[in-house]
Amino acid sequence: MFREKIKVFDCTIRDGGLINNHDFDDRFVREVYKALSLAGVDYMEMGYKNSKKLFSPKEFGKWKFCDDEAISSIIDGNKSKTKISVMVDVDRVDIEDVKPKKASPVDMIRVATYVKDIDKAIYLVNNFAEKGYETTVNIMAISRALDNELTEALCQLEEECKANTIYIVDSFGALYQETTEFLIKKFKSILKTKEIGIHAHNNQQLAFANTIEAIIHDANFVDGTVYGLGRAAGNCPLELLIGFLKNPKFDIRPILDLISNEFIPLREKMEWGYIIPYAITGILDEHPKAAMALRNSDKKENYREFYESLVGDDLD
Amino acid sequence: MFREKIKVFDCTIRDGGLINNHDFDDRFVREVYKALSLAGVDYMEMGYKNSKKLFSPKEFGKWKFCDDEAISSIIDGNKSKTKISVMVDVDRVDIEDVKPKKASPVDMIRVATYVKDIDKAIYLVNNFAEKGYETTVNIMAISRALDNELTEALCQLEEECKANTIYIVDSFGALYQETTEFLIKKFKSILKTKEIGIHAHNNQQLAFANTIEAIIHDANFVDGTVYGLGRAAGNCPLELLIGFLKNPKFDIRPILDLISNEFIPLREKMEWGYIIPYAITGILDEHPKAAMALRNSDKKENYREFYESLVGDDLD
Repeated sequence: MFREKIKVFDCTIRDGGLINNHDFDDRFVREVYKALSLAGVDYMEMGYKNSKKLFSPKEFGKWKFCDDEAISSIIDGNKSKTKISVMVDVDRVDIEDVKPKKASPVDMIRVATYVKDIDKAIYLVNNFAEKGYETTVNIMAISRALDNELTEALCQLEEECKANTIYIVDSFGALYQETTEFLIKKFKSILKTKEIGIHAHNNQQLAFANTIEAIIHDANFVDGTVYGLGRAAGNCPLELLIGFLKNPKFDIRPILDLISNEFIPLREKMEWGYIIPYAITGILDEHPKAAMALRNSDKKENYREFYESLVGDDLD
Repeated sequence: MFREKIKVFDCTIRDGGLINNHDFDDRFVREVYKALSLAGVDYMEMGYKNSKKLFSPKEFGKWKFCDDEAISSIIDGNKSKTKISVMVDVDRVDIEDVKPKKASPVDMIRVATYVKDIDKAIYLVNNFAEKGYETTVNIMAISRALDNELTEALCQLEEECKANTIYIVDSFGALYQETTEFLIKKFKSILKTKEIGIHAHNNQQLAFANTIEAIIHDANFVDGTVYGLGRAAGNCPLELLIGFLKNPKFDIRPILDLISNEFIPLREKMEWGYIIPYAITGILDEHPKAAMALRNSDKKENYREFYESLVGDDLD
């Protein structure tokens, strides 16, 4: 029997945009939106809402800024039940760029933060919530969070923050089922009035498994991306998530078509997925940036040297 | 802290052989054997011991027959602590082909069976055990086993069978963590004197996760293959398993070298891994053979039609 509260959240364009400087063309984004709508996916995240004072629109695609007009031009004429989300990074948004919900096609704003920046995240989220948006706080690099600092951050979120949902973000793809269970139970024990979400990375082929684990322990917001598209090893494949969930509102077939028609050709041009250097950073609980640099070098298949470079750092 | 009883079992050449008619050349098999030895892997399975009356050596490579001489020519000069295994299918072996252990380089014989053939499997295993081999029974297609028939088979195995270890084999890649937990607990509750093993397929990117789940619930024999090589979606990647286990006897580096030097080039010639038609048969708990046929056709990326062909069968 299915759990109606579970919401499926697609971040294909947002997390995939980390590979191509957020430069997907409108036709592609519209195909994704249409397929997600037909499949019954609850949310679609378009990209980041970054300040144009910090990043130049000449250097990045439009989904790094997510102007309301850009989003409207995707959904106009195809409006569906799928809600629209954008992500905001602490310290990278102009708060005045975010208009009141009534004047925007956006339904949800998610604020990505590290534990140390939780005060800034709460400030942003409360502003967006007052403007009428659904909101979440997404705690990144959770596998590196110190337990006492995480406890304090969660207590603050429960007491001070208007976000509906707090996310565990396994940025490094380092979680196993036992760690996921531990974290979800910890979040649930403190965040009595919030929903819990999970955003998993697939470095160790555990993104789907950790998402299932989170569902078992009562997380209700689950992120996926079509064919696992996303930075480095990518994310939980949306098609597997839909195959797993029993809610009859979901239909896997539009996603299968989308993969056949758009993602198989895309994979020839963009690299993501299970690739050994990303597995290594996941195993070692490291940011994938060193592995991404390796994949852009002429030593891209030199795994042992890469492994030894990571474990050989001098520590004091 | 690590659990010393956990044995890592590599079946790269055996399960990979299902893709290429068991026709790996000696150089390649020797490289795998050497790397597994250096990595501290406990067992290496070379292939099947099939009757030459049933299959012609002209049509298949030598690892479909696993003559003792063929195995000796791989390990001679490189003898290590890694034990050698061969697999036997019910109804496909000439029992007299199996010499006493003392006269053979093989350490273990694993008998693969469906629940319905459990009597035949017990007969074979007991013969091999009396000849001095370590033995296992590997129950295939476990996701389709009827619970009462499985119970009866397990009771028989506990009472009548000399195998040290009984394996759960997720042939269709259809298990989730909850099913894996259920099955391991069921096996443990009946098989009081046996170890439990798991052999997982990766159709839904859950082979590693289900192997971890089995370990959590006390399975001590865990199968993997280098870079996940294996029929259709392949198996639990050995490199992830070694990354996960904390036993200091394991060293991931020889496996990383092996993947760089041998498996990246091999993947250009042989297809395995996360491919949507295999995900579909996993989700639907079906044998991958229809998906394998699709991948050899000119409709290999036509996922929706394939999905509908499987869910559209008339049933009565």
